[in-house]
This record gives sequence, structure tokens and C-alpha cells, in this order.
Amino acid sequence: MTRTRKDRQFRPVAVPDVELGGFWGKWQDAVCQSTAETLLDRCVEAGMLKAIDIAQPSPGIVIPIQPWGGTTQMFWDSDLGKSIETIAYSLYRRPNPELEARADRIIDMYEKLQDKDGYLNAWFQRVQPERRWTNLRDHHELYCAGHLIEAAVAYYQATGKRKLLDIMCRYADYMITVFGHGEGQIPGYCGHEEIELALVKLARVTGEKKYLDLSKFFIDERGTEPHFFTEEAKRDGRDPENFIQKTYEYGQAHQPVREQRQVVGHAVRAMYLYSGMADIATEYNDDSLTAALETLWDDLTAKQMYITGGIGPSASNEGFTDYYDLPNDTAYAETCASVGLVFWASRMLGRGPDRRYADIMEQALYNGALPGLSIDGRTFFYDNPLESSGKHHRWKWHHCPCCPPNIARLVTSIGSYMYAVAEDEIAVHLYGESTARLKLANGANVELRQTSNYPWEGAIAFTAKLERPAKFALSLRIPEWADGAILSVNGTMIDLSTVVSDGYARIEREWADGDRVELDLPLELRPQYANPKVRQDAGRVALMRGPLVYCVEATDNGEDLNAIVLPRELPAAETTVLKDLNDAVAIDVAVEREETENWGKALYRKEPAKRRPARARFVPYHLWDNRAPGEMLVWVQSDK
Amino acid sequence: MTRTRKDRQFRPVAVPDVELGGFWGKWQDAVCQSTAETLLDRCVEAGMLKAIDIAQPSPGIVIPIQPWGGTTQMFWDSDLGKSIETIAYSLYRRPNPELEARADRIIDMYEKLQDKDGYLNAWFQRVQPERRWTNLRDHHELYCAGHLIEAAVAYYQATGKRKLLDIMCRYADYMITVFGHGEGQIPGYCGHEEIELALVKLARVTGEKKYLDLSKFFIDERGTEPHFFTEEAKRDGRDPENFIQKTYEYGQAHQPVREQRQVVGHAVRAMYLYSGMADIATEYNDDSLTAALETLWDDLTAKQMYITGGIGPSASNEGFTDYYDLPNDTAYAETCASVGLVFWASRMLGRGPDRRYADIMEQALYNGALPGLSIDGRTFFYDNPLESSGKHHRWKWHHCPCCPPNIARLVTSIGSYMYAVAEDEIAVHLYGESTARLKLANGANVELRQTSNYPWEGAIAFTAKLERPAKFALSLRIPEWADGAILSVNGTMIDLSTVVSDGYARIEREWADGDRVELDLPLELRPQYANPKVRQDAGRVALMRGPLVYCVEATDNGEDLNAIVLPRELPAAETTVLKDLNDAVAIDVAVEREETENWGKALYRKEPAKRRPARARFVPYHLWDNRAPGEMLVWVQSDK
Repeated sequence: MTRTRKDRQFRPVAVPDVELGGFWGKWQDAVCQSTAETLLDRCVEAGMLKAIDIAQPSPGIVIPIQPWGGTTQMFWDSDLGKSIETIAYSLYRRPNPELEARADRIIDMYEKLQDKDGYLNAWFQRVQPERRWTNLRDHHELYCAGHLIEAAVAYYQATGKRKLLDIMCRYADYMITVFGHGEGQIPGYCGHEEIELALVKLARVTGEKKYLDLSKFFIDERGTEPHFFTEEAKRDGRDPENFIQKTYEYGQAHQPVREQRQVVGHAVRAMYLYSGMADIATEYNDDSLTAALETLWDDLTAKQMYITGGIGPSASNEGFTDYYDLPNDTAYAETCASVGLVFWASRMLGRGPDRRYADIMEQALYNGALPGLSIDGRTFFYDNPLESSGKHHRWKWHHCPCCPPNIARLVTSIGSYMYAVAEDEIAVHLYGESTARLKLANGANVELRQTSNYPWEGAIAFTAKLERPAKFALSLRIPEWADGAILSVNGTMIDLSTVVSDGYARIEREWADGDRVELDLPLELRPQYANPKVRQDAGRVALMRGPLVYCVEATDNGEDLNAIVLPRELPAAETTVLKDLNDAVAIDVAVEREETENWGKALYRKEPAKRRPARARFVPYHLWDNRAPGEMLVWVQSDK
Repeated sequence: MTRTRKDRQFRPVAVPDVELGGFWGKWQDAVCQSTAETLLDRCVEAGMLKAIDIAQPSPGIVIPIQPWGGTTQMFWDSDLGKSIETIAYSLYRRPNPELEARADRIIDMYEKLQDKDGYLNAWFQRVQPERRWTNLRDHHELYCAGHLIEAAVAYYQATGKRKLLDIMCRYADYMITVFGHGEGQIPGYCGHEEIELALVKLARVTGEKKYLDLSKFFIDERGTEPHFFTEEAKRDGRDPENFIQKTYEYGQAHQPVREQRQVVGHAVRAMYLYSGMADIATEYNDDSLTAALETLWDDLTAKQMYITGGIGPSASNEGFTDYYDLPNDTAYAETCASVGLVFWASRMLGRGPDRRYADIMEQALYNGALPGLSIDGRTFFYDNPLESSGKHHRWKWHHCPCCPPNIARLVTSIGSYMYAVAEDEIAVHLYGESTARLKLANGANVELRQTSNYPWEGAIAFTAKLERPAKFALSLRIPEWADGAILSVNGTMIDLSTVVSDGYARIEREWADGDRVELDLPLELRPQYANPKVRQDAGRVALMRGPLVYCVEATDNGEDLNAIVLPRELPAAETTVLKDLNDAVAIDVAVEREETENWGKALYRKEPAKRRPARARFVPYHLWDNRAPGEMLVWVQSDK
């Protein structure tokens, strides 16, 4: 019988089990050397440590209450949580006793802050204790808990220290008593999803199914009637209609999750929810959840996703608008949303490899999430337009600092997105110089060394290190774009058509120490055109090479980037390695440029612009704004 | 000696002296039959009459104070003023005793409201009397006065009734005592310009130079140091830095007006200021003002103007941003701003005809201002995007109802923009079926009948009716787009190259009763391309015919208008008269359409869209959204 995806349960490899070099190694070094500490410094500057330190007076409302009824100060726990998570991953790569000591002190503060019953939330213990559990819709209470749980799991895995893990288990145990349909329990869920995926992590690291059950409860309850948010508002004396976001679609609570067919609302909320749903689908083999997720996946990727894997075009709801509405210059495309898409995609692989998910995971990772971090790890993008007139630059910090730690924790944990293991199978979802120590449920211990200059070059080699021969399948993603990929095992070519299913080459055999697999992915320059329904990309073309979206910047090409016209048939491109830009591969192409000189006095005229031959340099989009500031453009004019 | 423009003073013809038929006659009928009354009804519904009626209690703050420190309720006087002005013009065309009686009652209320000293402002007499003259920067106090003055002049000209005129003369006389550099006087000016041009109107109708002098005072003071707004704020106990608009550029008060070189800030404010400046330049033969205005004119029209004559792309400041930044779908391009551009352009003609101004006046009139009114005169556009995904529709009313009466008063007074007279010269700036009764300073009385189906057809004939022969020049604009225009006098062709200067054919002769001038302006379909520096129009083309910008609408062409591609060489176009759309001339062209069907599952792919031959119907932009709602597009893809 042929195996189907849904027969298998894949779980990500723990972060410390993968050591990165090459492309990702550099990015991880930037986080270890700069970002991890920067995050903590900024949290301290914002007053977050004072807020959790019961030895100090309550901070009160430091950041003003906003029209939506809350303040970003309410999510300080999440900022600290994601920062600790980042530190945890960074400590594994690069021991830093001083940074570890700072994290330990924060964890000690949380220990002291925690209530006897297990409750833990800086805002609702220190600023508004009377408001605990009164407004799950708006106040991010369980969202904060979720991020502290993720931090706890990461810190435990990285350092072996259990203190924060124990704290969060106590809190989760308390939540189990608080939420449910029993007498006096709250039949609700959080307006900003996050706790769902966090509880799955907690369950996996502790082996405690009760945490999975609570996660499933939150997912199952979402959007059911009578509507929890409506009932909660009434109980709290608030008018349920008085909701600044106007619709429960904002938090994907407009329908039971299994009935949802369209990706709507706040983009990060949506991604976190679907991530939790996918985890629960994997853990419970829940086909009804998987079916809903597959529909939502198609809805997002075929109608609502930028070519960068950026999602959520609108600033006003930080989320989705109409199908095919993807403005480039005003794209919100929050870094966190693409990080969330990576989360979701990786979890869609829980029931087996499928490049439908892994290709998008890679696309969103390199082009939607990674731009959020500068190459020195010190500055950040919150929103990620695909066109800039020159005014969009990285921030040192943000009034809502959710993105910096989000991209930092993703970068430092990227190994766990590259490899996943099932009972007798290793799946390689992402490529890049790395060494993974993998334990299969069938007892095999494999150290898999991946040698590659990916994504700059397409040659990838795996060498297996095994104490004794072992039978398992090695599944390697063959990206859809990789026309003409070549695979060999120990020098013997493999006919891909015989081994590829769902876009993965599955090599099932008894592996021996020193076995070598070579995969060559052709990195041809690919023009990409958008469905003509995307009005903003009409008449335009984007360039990709491998998984990377390219763009033009003024620093290489001068101003007026919209005057560049790419020929319909791409001429041969030259590549150059840019030493000052993380050794990125730049692409130089012959183009035409519309002349902006001598246009005449009027703004409009009867004759189109004259054109002259020119060359244009394209650089990877994720690296833009790392050199001189100026215009940037992804979708350039295409000749017709 | 050759005359130069600056030698002459042209003044617009009074509204009642021009009777419109044809194109403008229909629009005026719509205002007379619907808009004029609608405006008053809406003002009443908003509570404006209660606000000025001292027999009723003070209305208090009906509309909440906004972050900028005021409320639109503060400008209710201006809404009433523009409505009365519209009614005045409409009464001339179509007597309506009931409507006139309503206007009279409002004027009676204002008479009772006016303070003994002459002051008149509903807000500062009835709601915040203690705040009179304390915040000219933000509170629109003189702006309101200006609109009431314009109403007074119009009502007097249309009805012969002096009551409102006398009221406003008393107020203006009082202002003369209030403003100045004398002891206890206010050395200031209004944050929202309007009073300047209004005082010129008042001076011209009364013959009182003192009102011109006050207007000139406001203009001369603007932007000088020590800065009035700064000093005023300090006197008022406000922090001058605490200005929501951040920069005095917002109200063009950042520099003395003669030093200003760049059009900045709030678009309507800018247009009203420049209008007043141009009037003062004409009245005082002030070359320094004219020089500044010429620079500003080029700055606006060559770098900051939509092809529609829409200006001010940004909603956030209702105004200007960067050069060449002209987004189409988010264009603010407020109706009032284009009305203001018509005002300014017409006043730039005060020192002599020049098509540089009149061509733009016509362009902004037909394509920037007129879209603000539906063909039935009942609904209104506030902002005027050049592209709509189908969600932009006319309003019944607006929370800030400045645009409806502004376009209505322009439409009903259009005759005064068509004709202007100097001592011995008649200038015809705009074409259209009409009869003008013109009095020249040299004593000639001319009734000029213009017969034309312009702008739908280019044939225009003038017949002069004179009691006795008279010497004067007749200057007819030859639009820059009218390649191959043909002119004849009494059947004799005139070589245009011998009579055209500044774009006007100047026919100087002794005219006799029955003399006939024929002008034929070729209405060729013209592709228009934007300077490539306008990134939003890159690779796109717009169609114009005569003065009209065309667009495509979904109701004619189906959805996905961005999939339409116009060939580089325009094929022969067919024209159709649309009975259901004010007898507009529609244009049908052979185009190609990108196929949106069978695109495939992914949003992006390697192959561009296939194309199929198709036809597209273009309709005049000013008439869009008068039929079925749906997508609209001005700048369509252009083949390359």
C-alpha cells in the first residue's frame, strides 16, 4: 500500500540538534553577536524588567491605552518571552555566560511574580489585577502566556535549566482548571492566537497530553456559538458591538475553525492559529482540521500572498483585504506575518513532506521574514513593501517591538525547520550548510552533514555518519522551480521520476556510514509574472533565482527605478559575488531605461519616453537597505 | 510696441451676464433642479440653521473637537455661504421663489446674528465667544467670513438684494480695524486662505479699494517673521510646537509668499492663496507676485498634477507630498482642490490671456472638478482616484461637506470663467454653447453668441450682436492639443500663425453686427504618457480627446481592467453617443486583454499572461460611477 502524507507524524528536530554554517551560520552569528543582547537591552530600556520585578513598585500604565482598549505594554511578557527564546537558541550556538545570567535573572523575577495558583502576567498582576480574564478578546493574556511557554521550552532545550519550564507548566496546569465548560470555568479562547501552538510545544517537551488537550480545546471552541467574545463583553459590561476591529474575522473567530474557507483578518493572528491547528491535526491525526487547513492554504497562497511570501497588505487591520489586492509600495506585509507563515508551513509538514508547503516556507523565510533583520543584526523592518521611493528604512526599535525578536528567534532556530524526523524517515525541507544529529524512533542515530553554499549555489551534498547501518528513508525536497535537478547516491544517479512524490525524492534503503547523497538544484534566473488579477503587478516582472526574490536598488542603479524595462526574453545574466553584502550573488542584466531627461516642460505628453540600452543590477530582496538608502523595486516594467 | 500680458487687466464677466446651453446648460440644470436645494436641505439637517438663529439656544459643540483642535462645525458658515452662493447663481438661471425665500431667511438670521461691531461668526458668537480671534491658525475664522462675502457678492449680482452684501461690508469694515500693525491690532492672517480672494470680489463689486488693501495686507503678512502663528500661540498659552500639521507649509505660511518656489501643504489652502495673490497681482500690477506665481504654477503643473488636473495626492495632509508622487488608486485629489485650481488658473488670466493657464483651467475643470458631481446633481465625490477597485462611490453627503457646494457654485458660475473683458478686448477662455453680454470699458456693448456642441464636437461659431460697429480685439484660445485648428472670420480663413500669441488667436478689428467667427478644434484621440519619473504611470497610457480625460469602467468592459493593453499605435477609434450618460461621446478601441482564466493554481508563474484581441470602451472620466458601480481605470497598460 502506498503511504499517504497523513499516515506519518513528523516532528521538528530540536534546535540544539542542528549546527549551521554557511548562509544561515552568518545570520545566526549576527543574532548571537548583536541581536540577542540588543533585544534584551531594548526591553530593559522600555521598562519591562521593572514591570515584572515585584521588588519594585507597579509601573502603572507606561504606554497609553489605545483606541482598541489596550496598550502594547500589555504584551511586554511576549516581548520578554521571545527575547529569552532568542537568547536560548543563541546560547546553544555561542555560549555567553553574561547573557545567560541576565536571562536567569529575568526568569527568577518571573518565578517571584507568579501567583500561588500559577497565574503569571505582568500587566494583570501588577497594573490591572481586577481585570484578569475579563477581556480575552483584546488583552492578549493567553498570547503572553504562549510566548513565555515557547521561551521556557527553548531555554530548557538549550541550557537544560528547568526553572522557567516548571513555572510555565504550573501556569498551564492552572489554565486547565480555568478553561472549559465546567461550573465556573471560562468557555473561551484568546483574541490573539499563540497559546495553541505553544501548548503543543509544551506537550511535546514534557510528554504531557493534557497540554495538547487544552490547545485542542481552544481551537475547537474558536468561533462557536453562542459567541464567547459576545458573551464575555456582556458579562464585562461592555457593548459587544463596540469593537474597533468591527468583525470577529479580525481574530479568525467568525466561524468554527473547521468551517473557515478564507484567510481573513489580522495576518499574524491567522498564521499562529493555523500553526496551532496544523500541530493539533498532526498530533490527533485530525483530518477535518487538515482539510480546512488545505483550503485555507490555497486561499492564501493563490490569492493573497506577495511573491516575497509577505502577507497582509493593509496597515489598518495589519491583515488581509480583498483577493488579489497586493499593493507594492504600501504593502504592510509585516515581518511577523511571514515568520508566522513559516511556522504554519513547517507544521503543515507534520503529516508528511509535501513541497506545496515547504516551497512556500522557503519563499516566505528568505523573502518575507529575513528582510526584517539587517545583516549586522542591529536594525529591523516591521513592514516590508516591495517598492520604496527611498523613505523606508530599518528601525532601531518599534513602538510595538514584536518583529525583531520574532525574526531573531526564527533565524537562530532555523535548523529545526530544515530537518524533521518520523519513525523511519528523515525529511530535509530546507537546504544549507549544516550538521544535524537525528534520532529516529526506530533507534537509528544519524549525523547528517550537509555541505552547500546554498542558496547562492545549487550543489548540495549530504554525508551520513552512522554507528551502524540503518534502514530509513531520506526525503529530499525538489523545489518546484528546480527544473532539471540531479540526484545521486554514492555516485549513482537516481532517476527522480521514480522516487519523487509530493515533490520530495524519497530514498529508502539501508544507509551505511559515509554514504553520500548529492543533489544539484539548477539556479536559473526565473522571470515571474503575477496573475493579471493582481492589478498592481500588471505589465511587470519580478526576478527570482532559486528561492530568492531579487530587487533593484538605487545604490546600484540610480534613481527612477520604474524607468527600467526588462526585455521579454531575458538576455544572459552575469553574476557577481558582493563581499559587502554577505557574499550575496548579484545579477547584472541588459535592460532598457526610459529617459527621464529632456522630457519637456509638461508632465504629460503625446510621445512615450525614449529608451536607451542599459544594465541593471539586481540584488536579493532580503538584503535591501543594507547599504546606501534609496529607491527599491521588486516588480519592474516588463517589455511586451 | 507689442503688448505684453502684464499690460492689461482682465476681469471675469459677472455670472448673470452669461447664459449657458449645451454641455454646461445640462449641468447647470442639474444644480438648479437638485443640488441647490439639496445643499440647503443637508445644511438644515446638520443643524446649521439652528446654529445661526439667535432665537434658539446655542447649539454647543455638535460635532466633536478633533485632534487638530477644532471641528468641522467651525466652518458651518462657509457651508452656508457656498450654498447661498450656489443658490444665487441658480436663481439667475431658473427663478425659484421658494428657494430664494429660504436664502432670504438665512440672510435675515445672519443680520440678527451680526454683532454691533460688525463681527459675524456662528461658532465664535454662539459656541466659543471667548475664543474670538485667538487661533487664526486653526479655527477658519476668516475663511468663514470669506465664503460669506463670496455669497453676498453672488446674491447681490443675481437678485439685486443688498442685505447680505451690506452685512459683509460692515464685517469687512470691522476687520479693517482689527487687522494691521497699529496699537491693539492683530498682525495676522488666516490659517486657511479664502478671505484674500473674497475681499477682491467685494472690492470689485463695491468699488472700494480698502477691501483690496486688506486682502493685500493678509497676503503680504503671510509667512513673515516674527511668525504670527508662533506669536499667536504663545499669546494664547498654546505651545507653538504642538501643531498637528507639524509645519507651516501646511498653510503656505512657511515663507513670505513672494519667496515661495514650491507648491506645498494643504492643496485647497494653496489654491485659494494663489488665487488671491493672482487677483492682487492683477489689481496692483504687482510683478513680484506674478513672478512667484509663475514659478509656483510650473512647480505644480510639471511635477505635482494628475492628468485630470487633480492635485494633492495624500489624504493625511489633504495635500502635496513629493515631486512626481501621483498614486492613482489612493489619489486624494480633492474636488475642492481642483475647483481651487480652476480659481487660480482663471485669475492668472487677469493680466492677459495665456493658454498656459487656460488649458490647465479647462483640464482641471472637466476632469478634476466636475467628477465631484453626479449627472443628476444629487451625489458627490470628495476624493477623486484615477483607479478604483470598485469600492469608490459618490456620497450623498460628507462629514466635511466642503466639496458639494464648491463644485455646484463652480458649475453654475462657469460663464464667468469662459469670458473675460479688458478695456478693448474680449477673451474667450473656454468653449461651449452660450450667450454672453459683454460691456467693454471703451463703451462697446457686445452680445456674443457661441454655438457649439463642445466638448463633444470641435466646431465652434461666434456671432456678434452689436448696436453699432465697435473696435476691439477678440482673443480666442487655441488649446495646445488642437493641432490643425482652423479659424475664419466671416468666411475668410485666418492664418493662425499670424494672429496667435500666448496661445490665443487675437482678432483685432472693427466688429459689426452679425459678424461671424468660426473655429474648428480637431478632437483627435490623444494618447498621453507621463514623465517616467511618475512611477505610478510607468508603462501606462491615458487617452484624452479634446479637453477630456477618458477612462474604462467595468460596466462597459467587465472586471480586471488592468488586463487591458492598448497597442502602441492606436488603431482607428469609433465614437458612440451615450444617451444615458449626458450624450457623452464614448470611444471604442481595439485592444488586447490578458487572459485571467486558466492562469493555473499558483499566483505567480514563469510565463506571462496570454493575450487575446478585444475591444475596450472608454468614457469621459468626469462621468464615471454614474451608471453601474465597478472598477474604473484611467492609466491603462500600454504596449511597448
